[in-house]
Amino acid sequence: MTQIKAFSAVNETAPLSAATIERRLPKDNDVSINIEYCGICHTDIHQVRNEWGGSIYPMVPGHEITGIVAEVGAKVTKFKVGDRVGVGCFVDSCRTCTECKDGLEQYCSNGLVLTYNSTEHDGTPTMGGYSEKIVVNEDYVLRIPANLPLDAAAPLLCAGITLYSPLRHWGTGRGKKVAIIGLGGLGHIGVKIAHAMGAEVTVLSQSLKKKEEGLKLGADHYYATSDPETFTELQGRFDLIINTVSAALDWNLYLNLLKRDGALVVVGIPDTNIPVNAFPLVMGRKSVAGSLIGGIKETQEMLDFCGAHNIACDIELIPIQKVNEAYERVLKSDVKFRFVIDMATLKA
Amino acid sequence: MTQIKAFSAVNETAPLSAATIERRLPKDNDVSINIEYCGICHTDIHQVRNEWGGSIYPMVPGHEITGIVAEVGAKVTKFKVGDRVGVGCFVDSCRTCTECKDGLEQYCSNGLVLTYNSTEHDGTPTMGGYSEKIVVNEDYVLRIPANLPLDAAAPLLCAGITLYSPLRHWGTGRGKKVAIIGLGGLGHIGVKIAHAMGAEVTVLSQSLKKKEEGLKLGADHYYATSDPETFTELQGRFDLIINTVSAALDWNLYLNLLKRDGALVVVGIPDTNIPVNAFPLVMGRKSVAGSLIGGIKETQEMLDFCGAHNIACDIELIPIQKVNEAYERVLKSDVKFRFVIDMATLKA
Repeated sequence: MTQIKAFSAVNETAPLSAATIERRLPKDNDVSINIEYCGICHTDIHQVRNEWGGSIYPMVPGHEITGIVAEVGAKVTKFKVGDRVGVGCFVDSCRTCTECKDGLEQYCSNGLVLTYNSTEHDGTPTMGGYSEKIVVNEDYVLRIPANLPLDAAAPLLCAGITLYSPLRHWGTGRGKKVAIIGLGGLGHIGVKIAHAMGAEVTVLSQSLKKKEEGLKLGADHYYATSDPETFTELQGRFDLIINTVSAALDWNLYLNLLKRDGALVVVGIPDTNIPVNAFPLVMGRKSVAGSLIGGIKETQEMLDFCGAHNIACDIELIPIQKVNEAYERVLKSDVKFRFVIDMATLKA
Repeated sequence: MTQIKAFSAVNETAPLSAATIERRLPKDNDVSINIEYCGICHTDIHQVRNEWGGSIYPMVPGHEITGIVAEVGAKVTKFKVGDRVGVGCFVDSCRTCTECKDGLEQYCSNGLVLTYNSTEHDGTPTMGGYSEKIVVNEDYVLRIPANLPLDAAAPLLCAGITLYSPLRHWGTGRGKKVAIIGLGGLGHIGVKIAHAMGAEVTVLSQSLKKKEEGLKLGADHYYATSDPETFTELQGRFDLIINTVSAALDWNLYLNLLKRDGALVVVGIPDTNIPVNAFPLVMGRKSVAGSLIGGIKETQEMLDFCGAHNIACDIELIPIQKVNEAYERVLKSDVKFRFVIDMATLKA
């Protein structure tokens, strides 16, 4: 085992603070990564504060990890020391179920091993990216394209794939009209990716406050959902609406904005049930669906796509000592558009 | 105009009774059909009783019509006198919108002309199949395969296509597992069609009362939804679940029965919103969707498919004088599996 520096939460009410944790030595198929950057995802806050129950403490959050390969196990073939790599929301899966065999490990039916707040197959609790180093089986490590900066690329590992996967799955491309509800960490990268895929992109945001940024990111249109006119004007407009907002919405209003065969896809889980009216579903063969991050193969495809289109996230880089403050700002949506922790500051 | 015999409702509380109505003389592209049979759809009852609002009286219901061509307009090319034909839920559409051009007239965005309780483009109220004759533009007339009896084929025009279309759209075939909720008029033909498409078919019914019939119709499995064990045993089992029941259900229980990428499709419209939990949607990329009958092209395809597989509905044939009694029995689900009116009895 190696002792390394990290920031951890000791219980659900404690702020994150400096700690020392242990990482295993690389096994034959493991890659040891010096973490350079880690994004802050809203999920980190939910889990640190045990808002979904079942949190494991001490907890080192973080699943938007980028860094440099420091060491490789004897049988590693995919990576070598010095490679620029990333780790996303999971670090292992069963590898045998239909989902794993289909390259959709995120839906693994025998227990996905999440990057933190989870346990390895041998029972060891997993610890995330707010730390110096992480040791991961090479099959769950991603390659970061050379032209993408490691800090701005970090949130692609969760926010990026969370939007890329449903955009691809529901056929986004030239001639398609896509709306993104919410222009936060998820929404802003969704706009960039959908635009790069060739779609006509509309942002549906509560207000027009971030309109200028939205258009700069690649949106063709920007509407305020606080204005009832929006829901009249945009009726029957979209092939796909992706909802990145967890707050309760009037879902049926949004279903009316879909074309025939359109889909409203949720990528977050609201606290309450979605009260869906069957009428718009039946009258236009519309659907309400969900999507969860993406598999390893698709995550690599997303990174390569972002490399080819020179897309990364718009971030605010912070020292790890400001992480608790950053959490408060995330809760107020006071960030454009994702916080990324500079892990060099862990050594300070 | 021609005066013909029919059964109509004069207001929302009156029983259906004998009446004389007028039909237009066939225009150049019209087909005049001597109606031999008409199925009774639950929709007929909803509309006769104005349960959805906006009903137009006097109303002659009926949109599961079969009969023989009696006369054709000067420019009719698709049909000739003596042909065995059918008319379904609509008799015209705008022909210019994307939906019409895509052959999905049922979703016509400029006003579908329903077979009854609707108005023609010239404002004339439409009158349905509980009548001697109907005059319909040839483009909205279907051909009934020679081997299908006209009485048992009648309910294919609504019930049949209502199930066939979503089964096809969501890829039913060999190797697929399909569940049908409810074994009524819709469910029973859904079982036959899904079975003929090669799928493994499961009926999910409140009780096991109709199990024997269900298996005879082609179901491979039959489960009672009143038994909580059903929802444990069938978890993650189905590619597609079609809900033919309008009553309120615990939708989230059914979502758990879907595989990854599975769809729960509603073909009826429940009175209340569907409270869907986003968790199963996100955790398995599942969807809740709707589907409405089918277009003319697909309805003909369905009829030809039923002809090729020798499939028609299991019906109880009644004289039109028993229609009000039949309505009461439909409301109690006391029919195996669809009432069809023998229109010869209209002359009695």
